[in-house]
Amino acid sequence: MNALRVGLAGLGTVGGGVIAMLRDNADIIAARAGRAITVTAISARDRTRDRGFSTEGLAWHEDPMALASDPEVDVVVEVMGGSEGPARALVASSLAAGRPVVTANKALLAVHGAELAALSEKHGTSLAFEAAVAGGIPVIKALREGLAGNRISRVAGILNGTCNYILTVMREQGRDFADVLADAQRLGYAEADPAFDVNGIDAAHKLAILAALAFGRPVAFDAVHVEGIRAISAMDIAFARDFGFRIKLLGIARHDANGIAARVHPCLVPETAPIARVDGVFNAVVAEGDFVGRVMLEGRGAGAGPTASAVVADLIDIARDRFTPVWGAGSAALSQVPSVAMEQHVGAYYLRLMVTDRPGVIADVTAALRDAGVSLSSMLQRGRSAGEAVPVVLVTHETSEAAIRAALSRIATLDTVTEPPALIRIEPG
Amino acid sequence: MNALRVGLAGLGTVGGGVIAMLRDNADIIAARAGRAITVTAISARDRTRDRGFSTEGLAWHEDPMALASDPEVDVVVEVMGGSEGPARALVASSLAAGRPVVTANKALLAVHGAELAALSEKHGTSLAFEAAVAGGIPVIKALREGLAGNRISRVAGILNGTCNYILTVMREQGRDFADVLADAQRLGYAEADPAFDVNGIDAAHKLAILAALAFGRPVAFDAVHVEGIRAISAMDIAFARDFGFRIKLLGIARHDANGIAARVHPCLVPETAPIARVDGVFNAVVAEGDFVGRVMLEGRGAGAGPTASAVVADLIDIARDRFTPVWGAGSAALSQVPSVAMEQHVGAYYLRLMVTDRPGVIADVTAALRDAGVSLSSMLQRGRSAGEAVPVVLVTHETSEAAIRAALSRIATLDTVTEPPALIRIEPG
Repeated sequence: MNALRVGLAGLGTVGGGVIAMLRDNADIIAARAGRAITVTAISARDRTRDRGFSTEGLAWHEDPMALASDPEVDVVVEVMGGSEGPARALVASSLAAGRPVVTANKALLAVHGAELAALSEKHGTSLAFEAAVAGGIPVIKALREGLAGNRISRVAGILNGTCNYILTVMREQGRDFADVLADAQRLGYAEADPAFDVNGIDAAHKLAILAALAFGRPVAFDAVHVEGIRAISAMDIAFARDFGFRIKLLGIARHDANGIAARVHPCLVPETAPIARVDGVFNAVVAEGDFVGRVMLEGRGAGAGPTASAVVADLIDIARDRFTPVWGAGSAALSQVPSVAMEQHVGAYYLRLMVTDRPGVIADVTAALRDAGVSLSSMLQRGRSAGEAVPVVLVTHETSEAAIRAALSRIATLDTVTEPPALIRIEPG
Repeated sequence: MNALRVGLAGLGTVGGGVIAMLRDNADIIAARAGRAITVTAISARDRTRDRGFSTEGLAWHEDPMALASDPEVDVVVEVMGGSEGPARALVASSLAAGRPVVTANKALLAVHGAELAALSEKHGTSLAFEAAVAGGIPVIKALREGLAGNRISRVAGILNGTCNYILTVMREQGRDFADVLADAQRLGYAEADPAFDVNGIDAAHKLAILAALAFGRPVAFDAVHVEGIRAISAMDIAFARDFGFRIKLLGIARHDANGIAARVHPCLVPETAPIARVDGVFNAVVAEGDFVGRVMLEGRGAGAGPTASAVVADLIDIARDRFTPVWGAGSAALSQVPSVAMEQHVGAYYLRLMVTDRPGVIADVTAALRDAGVSLSSMLQRGRSAGEAVPVVLVTHETSEAAIRAALSRIATLDTVTEPPALIRIEPG
């Protein structure tokens, strides 16, 4: 059978990884794909840069859009990134030309996934994106195919390796966020501009994709509630440990009678939960299905190798003509379940205040909680030094987001409360 | 599009689960399969038994072989079990008739997988078996498709829920094997005849399948070294804990320069390894690929729901015409790497002896180890009671199976050693 000819847009870390994998494992890949898979054309910004591999014999296009029409290309691999601009244009025009696309671009799928799925459907062309979520862990395939017969009630995960690395080092070394972030940047685990990662946007893109797949509904990035990890302190990590929890940035989507709630925020997770033990740059995704029960997948969420592994798996599917609709089902078969607003969230909360250590403080705080209908499961006050600010930690029973916010806004007005309170939701894992 | 019509052979726990899932989740399944999937014909031993669901409107065949030729059937689901007899005959004749087959039958795949793959290949017909390994965890799909571009160096797993349940209860409650097995039988977690599970055969069937997929070579059940968990004592579990390990029955297949080694036996696993925390009836599989790194999948390994989840996923693949060769590649593209015998295994060992507590005993034991070239990393002797048997635990550095066996056979001849020694291999997890 003829080789599958790949046009590769983007020659950064991921593009280099794809080239290396197709070259190093050509024998295995040809066996599993039923034919050879070969890069025939590439496009990247700087032609002169030494990337550590030869581009001899490959067609070089200054404009990535040329890959959509190059007659020597059967499938386009887009690993440039960015939800707009060239990436979006290339993917859309390739699909419109009936040319299958493999992309690692979570932002593109999260923001323009509906429109791209429509193009894929109209032209009967694959749009594959295993690499967009959780790197080399085959989580897209697991949700879209492996667990496809299940009604999924919940999907949750550690979806951003940078955040998980920072939180892990903060916990292990008792250091604060800014300090660890600076280190992570030096080590290449965080970008020079880390906002996308540490503010939770990257995880939210991935969660939006997972939720669409898990629940069989159109992708809805705007409906994801997003909070990052900047406000997490070493003190809160230490207190969490005292209560038997670890702090993780989770993406969580749940489908219940009210609809679908999707949120990314730091969580206290019981240290006995499997996901609590997923540390460093590792990612993990948990799915709960009505027949399968709870399934967890864990592995490296980023980097050249894991991302290339996912891209090449998609190429093998395409080489074998294995077709799956973008969101697992055709657009007419997607569900139209409404999104649930964050205010309707119900759960337990960790609340840490800095208060002036004088009589009546705790009475004022607990009265505010009581009046909002929030009941406490435990409280911890550590260190006493009259007149100075000391931390007080409160853990609530299940309550509504609206109630805890009402209590918090009253607590924030107390003149004995010296700093904005830290509020972290508690999740089962 | 026309419905995919299923002929179901076997109406036990799994068959009932498949019927329930196709009925309860018909909407989701039709959306993801692109068409309805309906059971039209069934075959089981006892027609009169009440199974809790109606068989009205379904063709009933006394002889399961009729499903291979029933013109109202598009795909055969075989959930009768057994590597020989009706299951084997039905699967072979269905494939020979060009009719795709979904099976949950690990014994059949492990023992006759090569012959069935040849039939599948000859007739261009799917033989799908996600349910054969690790229940609802999509591990076949992960290895055969999701990680398909990787050179896998090792695949390992907790593959038998009965054994994992027994070992977990032994550890948590400090009880002995026979006692916990009896309980497990009462609770339905172990069969009346538990030999297949507790002797490691079931795990070996599954490991043979995983190894064939991971390494792209023909299935080789006879080359798997198999030991069960009958010899594991509460005492060894407690000692393991003192050394920072848990005891798990693992199936492990490794591909190195010498070839492929595949073995099922109890292991000491560091309690910090993710797989060490997989308890009770849960299964887990770890795969290590050259690009993806380490990936772990975890979930329920048995039961009606998880097994049905896997069977239905395979049916959806067939409904969508997604075809994958049985062992991931065509027979001509499979590798012919030799198997490595257990005697060539190299690793660390846990050795527990019962010795008469008198002078010179330890000197004799350590001399035997030294003479065989086995070096020790630690030793523990607990309790002293002159003249009576006391346990001595030795942990070795990496050594060869041949060396430790040579040492053991000399140790067994010492008259101060009162019981057959317990020897358990140590694995990284």
